[in-house]
Amino acid sequence: MLLSPNALPGYHAGQGVSVCTMIKNGKPTKRQIILEEAAKLFKDKGYVGTSMRDIAGQVGMEAASMYNHIKSKDEILDHICFRISDIYIAHLQEIEELPLSYGEKLRTLIRRHIQLMIEDGPEVSVANHDYKYLPAARLTDFTDARRRYEKGFAALIAAGTAAGEFQSVNPTVALFTILSAVRWIELWFKPGRSLSAQELEDHIITMLLNGLENR
Amino acid sequence: MLLSPNALPGYHAGQGVSVCTMIKNGKPTKRQIILEEAAKLFKDKGYVGTSMRDIAGQVGMEAASMYNHIKSKDEILDHICFRISDIYIAHLQEIEELPLSYGEKLRTLIRRHIQLMIEDGPEVSVANHDYKYLPAARLTDFTDARRRYEKGFAALIAAGTAAGEFQSVNPTVALFTILSAVRWIELWFKPGRSLSAQELEDHIITMLLNGLENR
Repeated sequence: MLLSPNALPGYHAGQGVSVCTMIKNGKPTKRQIILEEAAKLFKDKGYVGTSMRDIAGQVGMEAASMYNHIKSKDEILDHICFRISDIYIAHLQEIEELPLSYGEKLRTLIRRHIQLMIEDGPEVSVANHDYKYLPAARLTDFTDARRRYEKGFAALIAAGTAAGEFQSVNPTVALFTILSAVRWIELWFKPGRSLSAQELEDHIITMLLNGLENR
Repeated sequence: MLLSPNALPGYHAGQGVSVCTMIKNGKPTKRQIILEEAAKLFKDKGYVGTSMRDIAGQVGMEAASMYNHIKSKDEILDHICFRISDIYIAHLQEIEELPLSYGEKLRTLIRRHIQLMIEDGPEVSVANHDYKYLPAARLTDFTDARRRYEKGFAALIAAGTAAGEFQSVNPTVALFTILSAVRWIELWFKPGRSLSAQELEDHIITMLLNGLENR
């Protein structure tokens, strides 16, 4: 068993974080507020279980006037999924070109991966779970983007092993162990935890790159 | 993003494994066959989406004669959930008493944890996802058992850190990182993979205990 980050005392899972990279700079537009509130509702109630009326209610607008900013629930889902996959791909491309060791590249990639989960928790959760409701053509685009990220991630691990920096671990096993290892953050992290986001990143990266055992 | 063990070529997720510890020794009884087939159906279609008629069809029995062996769907769910939690607790208690270093204890505990996922994939999946359909009193028993396992697991990590064997990683972060890190196996592993179960265990344990980077 049985991942249950909310099983230990003092944990309150399922609460999104309030900082959103989307609106970090300057005053958010109505459209941005609608997208952010929609992501929180999709995370809590699921994409299928959320109506445009629910979103309007959450934002405090009349449904009719919300349609001036957003055409449909489909448009919201598309925006959220591809915004998140674009950011992941951009991280990967940026890190591939940095003049760093493979160990430092992988540390940076994992750190960015965790940071996005912390800063845009509800959106990452929607991209992880509700992407399957994208229309067929867009679903293919999205899974292609995901595959590209995973292949780039695994290639970095394989290159590090070839260069003698990493142990001879199967790159696919290493990839999925890393991506899986950080998934509990989605259910657990919120501001005000005894552990800061930075400490959380440090501890997880220490475990995955250096191992739990002392050297 | 975005754990998708089935996104890379050659992967076929969602297929259970055929070896079941429950029926390893000797010829399985009718009841054991019903429980095993029910677990596969619950994993594929969900507990709510599976009927007693579906289970009878899968086993190749008349529904009426199946009731000679199993009273209800509730009884099946209860049996599966508590059989799995009993095994996890037994592993923990056995390992706590072994005369080993904390590193060896943790290696053994992670290995047993992975082995149960591989040997009884559908049952572990049901205990992970469908436990929430247990009636209230049994749900409390089950979450108490899970908490006991998680607390014992975290205590082992904390003791290893106190003894100077492990790095100073927050025991809660280490616990959930380890339990989360192995969850992708549930979607990915089936017999006939290019990687054996033993290799899979070895590679994951190497990453979590020794770290990906060479020492």
